[in-house]
Amino acid sequence: MPHITLNSDEPGIRGLFRYRPETALPLNQLVESLLRGPGSLTPGERELIAAYVSSLNECRYCYGSHSAYAAEQLPGGMALVEQVRADVAGAPVSAKLKALLAIAAAVQQGGRNVTTEQVAAARAEGATDVEIHDTVLIAAAFCMFNRYVDGLGTNLPDDPAFYSTRAKKIAADGYVALLLESQQAAR
Amino acid sequence: MPHITLNSDEPGIRGLFRYRPETALPLNQLVESLLRGPGSLTPGERELIAAYVSSLNECRYCYGSHSAYAAEQLPGGMALVEQVRADVAGAPVSAKLKALLAIAAAVQQGGRNVTTEQVAAARAEGATDVEIHDTVLIAAAFCMFNRYVDGLGTNLPDDPAFYSTRAKKIAADGYVALLLESQQAAR
Repeated sequence: MPHITLNSDEPGIRGLFRYRPETALPLNQLVESLLRGPGSLTPGERELIAAYVSSLNECRYCYGSHSAYAAEQLPGGMALVEQVRADVAGAPVSAKLKALLAIAAAVQQGGRNVTTEQVAAARAEGATDVEIHDTVLIAAAFCMFNRYVDGLGTNLPDDPAFYSTRAKKIAADGYVALLLESQQAAR
Repeated sequence: MPHITLNSDEPGIRGLFRYRPETALPLNQLVESLLRGPGSLTPGERELIAAYVSSLNECRYCYGSHSAYAAEQLPGGMALVEQVRADVAGAPVSAKLKALLAIAAAVQQGGRNVTTEQVAAARAEGATDVEIHDTVLIAAAFCMFNRYVDGLGTNLPDDPAFYSTRAKKIAADGYVALLLESQQAAR
């Protein structure tokens, strides 16, 4: 049960977006820019970083969501996402992506945990400075989203198909469009 | 030295805003809404929560910034902010604010660390659901900002007056206006 009385029974962050539209819009603009805006990592790769950090923070709602969004947009689908969660080293992703996931895992522990060696390793595998920047910011942002969702004790969805249904919409239309659509529907 | 090659020598998050304007705007819209938008906690109280979380994350740049912004907007000034950092229990702030700071400290550790007892204690001291929501989201957001600033190894400002000079501008004009002004100046 959520720690505060929400104004809907929507699960996870969706209930929080409905409750506090003032912060919902900039949060969605941020995630749209981070995960779908201009950048050389694909939306699927960026969602994978988001899902991986959410699993490290043990945020079930965010992992459920972003693993589905990553699976929808990566050729390897959910099997690949689950392999990354279980064992990054053995997962069939590029050496560059593995090095970026190592940076994301350091950020999850704390910003000061990122080492020059980890950054050099990512660069040696072909990561650009913008990709390193975006990885750090995505990982940091999911340390926020995970704490927001769990710090207010939000509910999980009843229906396990919730995430995959939403994944198709996110991949097609993006975060801000879906937020505005749901705000419209709630009126 | 920063982990990536920035396009300016601006310290802390300002260098990152200059480097990646695509994410700078939503980040500033978020912090404007969180710390200065509609809400019953004062901007000074909200900046105090931001400074406190930044101190727990040992982020020197963010603590330097937001302690100065809090000091600028709280009657107790920097002495009060430093007292809160050193010993919340003994600091001369309201019982409600102490209870909210305890929730913020739990969020800093992880979203799942927030307990129903902490939330009940805040409510018993008069905190509203929106204030509890905003405290959780501010604390979560600074777990992002702190990781972003330190995860990319940004520099501290050379001049210790940097923070207090900026504090007056933030209090007067806000985050988004200052971002747009600095983007204008960089052109």
